Parts: sequence; structure tokens; C-alpha cells
Amino acid sequence: MSAGAPVVVLAGGTGGAKLARGMADVVGEDLVVIANTADDVEIYGAHVSPDPDLVTFWLADRIDARGWGLDGDTFAVMDGLRELGVEVWFNLGDRDLAIGIERARRLAQGARLTETLAELGRTLGIPGRVLPMCDEPVRTRVRAHGREWPFQEFMIRGGARGPVDGVAYDGAPDARPTPEVLDALAHARAIVIGPSNPLVSIGPILAVPGMRAALRAAPAPVVAVSPIVAGAVLKGPTAAFMAWAGQPVSAAGVAALYGDVLDGIVADEPVAHLPLLETDLLMADATGRERLARETLAFADGLRGG
Amino acid sequence: MSAGAPVVVLAGGTGGAKLARGMADVVGEDLVVIANTADDVEIYGAHVSPDPDLVTFWLADRIDARGWGLDGDTFAVMDGLRELGVEVWFNLGDRDLAIGIERARRLAQGARLTETLAELGRTLGIPGRVLPMCDEPVRTRVRAHGREWPFQEFMIRGGARGPVDGVAYDGAPDARPTPEVLDALAHARAIVIGPSNPLVSIGPILAVPGMRAALRAAPAPVVAVSPIVAGAVLKGPTAAFMAWAGQPVSAAGVAALYGDVLDGIVADEPVAHLPLLETDLLMADATGRERLARETLAFADGLRGG
Repeated sequence: MSAGAPVVVLAGGTGGAKLARGMADVVGEDLVVIANTADDVEIYGAHVSPDPDLVTFWLADRIDARGWGLDGDTFAVMDGLRELGVEVWFNLGDRDLAIGIERARRLAQGARLTETLAELGRTLGIPGRVLPMCDEPVRTRVRAHGREWPFQEFMIRGGARGPVDGVAYDGAPDARPTPEVLDALAHARAIVIGPSNPLVSIGPILAVPGMRAALRAAPAPVVAVSPIVAGAVLKGPTAAFMAWAGQPVSAAGVAALYGDVLDGIVADEPVAHLPLLETDLLMADATGRERLARETLAFADGLRGG
Repeated sequence: MSAGAPVVVLAGGTGGAKLARGMADVVGEDLVVIANTADDVEIYGAHVSPDPDLVTFWLADRIDARGWGLDGDTFAVMDGLRELGVEVWFNLGDRDLAIGIERARRLAQGARLTETLAELGRTLGIPGRVLPMCDEPVRTRVRAHGREWPFQEFMIRGGARGPVDGVAYDGAPDARPTPEVLDALAHARAIVIGPSNPLVSIGPILAVPGMRAALRAAPAPVVAVSPIVAGAVLKGPTAAFMAWAGQPVSAAGVAALYGDVLDGIVADEPVAHLPLLETDLLMADATGRERLARETLAFADGLRGG
């Protein structure tokens, strides 16, 4: 383990973003987040990347108290669309929209998604880096209520209600981990799968061909932080997705989904045959986020010799 | 002349829009504006139609005191883009952007530009109708300062400075007047060419193949309101464009550019061999706009018997 080796966090939305924010307090610039891009949506002429941007806003201490978007953002364009009679199902602040508009412009110019996230990170002055899992478009589609939904529509228009009858990662077969992702994994001090939805936040990352192999081949230990707290899900429709996958809503169910990439798990209940750090998974504030990140990293470091 | 026959105003930017607003006071719902769309620009993921929107905002009494855009609009997205390091050369308010975003979405769905302008007009509750000159993309390009500029870039980034070395209407050969435009011209009570730049505001309208023929074939008289006031141009780079076209900055120069479509001219100086309404061309306020519109319509009505 060399000083400066990256600590990699795989993250979807809020859970992974909070852990990444805590990890930035622990390792600063050595943090590398690999973010899910399968929730990306092209709307309002913009390319919106909800998960990478949520992580970036958290790392920049710019996340709004509502839990998404930039702090203090306004919603004049959405108000304007409503005045035009548009059904605004996907709400986006004005500065958030500016980010998505500029990203769409850069992508149309031929920039990689990786570059656009790096540019945003620099502009907002975040510690470390936020990488997309791949530069190719992968999009989660959810079968529920007798139809198939793009992920954001399922979450918002579909009310994120189960039961879930299917999950697909469109485009995944043609995607590849980026060179930046492969490099971070190969040189990592530790790799942490954040407490995000295993199916729709972490699932698309693991579905990128070559990603599981890169995780298995990485010298660093791979540990997951379970999103299941006291037998329940803190946020979002994780239970319905785990039911579809035939897994219990438990740390064991999470571990089963991640399979052989895991070297250990951070949870509040044991998982058979897997090294465990049993700890409080709540991240109620900055202290809690830093604590869970520090404990998780120490746990991973301890597995390295194992 | 039947009651309810349209009074058609050909308009580019501010001059034509003000006259149209005055004409709405005179004829109300019978107003039909044929607007220049060759200044349209696709930017920020939006389809922006500066001239049709300017006319629409004037007709809705929603034009901002700055002379463009919606009254009281905010600029949060432009501020956001600047914060991202984007050079914002084309300034657009948030609600104005919402209009352009929704228009781009509708056009991508297959809607005609005509439909999108009708939808905006209904939303803003304007009297009469604003029609695009055509549904096909036509774009004015200006040669100046040793390069060729898209029109908006010439006006804003190029400072609208002459000398002008060339004007082209890209796409015009493939454009046609819409059925709505042809119907309005064929059934008009009067056709008024508004006091807009003859080369870059009215020029593209007349460059649509079939438009001049439709004007000549229309039973209604066609009269132009000169944009030249007391031998000078009130607003914009008209002089540089007229110099390029080899015409004097005078009502005679304007009449020469419009050629044989004209049955009369409203100006503050005579034009040889052309019926003239000599009057005050200033439209300083609502009273002035209504006066010039009323006088122009009476002049056109008088030519009908000639």
C-alpha cells in the first residue's frame, strides 16, 4: 500500500454519495468514486447524470437540504415549462439544468462523459475524482405495472412502486470500464461498494462487461457497505428490487448479489462465510459519515493481509 | 373586402413587432404576422426563434423594457453556465429558455414550426396569429470582417459592425411558404411590410421561393413601411447591409429592394413612381404605434380601388 493509492467507492445515489463524502474527510484527494450512469436522462436539451452529479454535489458540500440538486438553486425554467402547459415530471433546478446543457454540448462536441464529470468536479472544487462507470450509454429499464419504464420514469411517474417484474441494463453489452476506472481499481488501496441499491445503483456498474473481472483482479480488498439497516431499507425502492432478484432484504441478500467480488461486508448483521465489520450503518451527519468511512477503510486495510 | 379578412404584417425584429402591436389595436384578431425565422438559433438544447418570439411577446404585452425577452424574466441558467466557465455570448432568460426547450422538443416530435408558434401564441393569449415564413430551416449568414457569420453571431459576437461583404439565406432554395402563409396572403385585406431591416429581416421572407409570387398575386395591396427615419436608421445595422446591396439609406433604397411586390410605401420622403403615405414613422409609445398602423391600413385600403 503506497501513500496516495486511491480509495475507490462505487456509488449510486444518496447512500453511496454520503459514504463518499465521509471518505473524502478520511482520504481527501485520494478518493475516486465510480458512479452509476444508468440513471442518466436526456431531457430539456440537457444530459442529466443524476448519480454522478449527486455525488459531486455532496463532495462539494453543495447538496441541497431537499436531498438532491444544488443548494439554493432556483426553478425558473421548470416554472416556465409549466406555464407553457408542459407536464414537468422530472424536476431540475436552473443551475442543475445549466450543468446538463453544458454536458450535452460537450458530449455533442465529442467529449467523453469522463471528461465532462472531471470538468464539473474541477469547477466545483471537489476533493478527489468522480468517474462514470463507462463512457458508453447504459440505461436501466424497469418492468413493473404491466409496462417497461426508463428508470427515472419508474421512480418518479411510476412512484417507485413494486412489485418489480424485471430489470434490464440497456446498452451494457457494448460498454466497457473506462481506462480511468481500470487504473483506479488496479492501483487502489481499498475498494468500497457504497450502501446504494444493489440492483439499480450498483447493479449497472457490475453489469459493465469487464467490471467484475477488474474487481476480482484488483489487489485491493473489495468490501461492501450494506444498504440494509436494522432489516429495512432507509431510502428508495430497494426491497421491491431485491424481491424481484429473489434475495432477502438483508446483508446476506446484498452479499449474494455481489457474489465473488466481495472480500468483506460492513453490516449490522452477520453474513455466512464473509468477513464482517459489524457497526452502526447510519450516517446522520458529517460525524457519522466520517466514522463509517473511517471504520470501513480500516476494515478493508485489515483484510489486505488476510 | 370582407370583414374579418386578415391584415398581414411581414415582420422581423423590433420595428415590425411594434407596428404589429399597433395593428392589433386596430384590427384585433384579424392580425396575421408573417415572421422571419432566418435568425433562429439552436443553442442550449433549445430552438430559439428570436423574431417570431419578439413579435409574440409584443402582441402579448409581455416584452421586457430592455427591448427583448419576457418581462421580468430571470437569468439563472445563463448565470449557471457562466459559473461553469461557458462564454455566454447569446443571452436568454429562464422563461425564454423554457420556450425554446419546449419548441425543440415539439420539433423533435415532428411538429411544424407553425404549430409551435401557434401553441405559444395561445399560451400567451395574443390577438391574431404569428406565422413563420416557412417550416423549413432557413438561416441568414453574413460575410464580414474576413469571415462568414451565422446571423446572431454577427450581431452579438461581431458587434453588428460593417462593412458587410455578403448576405446569404442558407436553406432558402428548399423552403416554401406554408399553407397558412399562402392562405393569409390570398385572402388578405392588406399586406404591410413592417419597418424592419430590408436585407436581414424582410429579405429572408422574400427569399422563400414562391413568396414574391404570392405577394404579387395577392388581391390585397402591398405597402411597405420604411425603416428609414429622417434619412437614418433607428436601430440596428441596416445601413451597412444597404450599402452592401448598393442601395442608398432612403425610402427609395428600401423600395428598390422590395421591387415589384410593392403597391405603395409609407415613408417620410417621396419615392419616384410609387404611391406614398408621407407621415411620422416614429412609434414612441402605444399611441404612436396605433396611429402609424391605422394610417398605414387606411393608405392600403385606399390603394385597393386604384
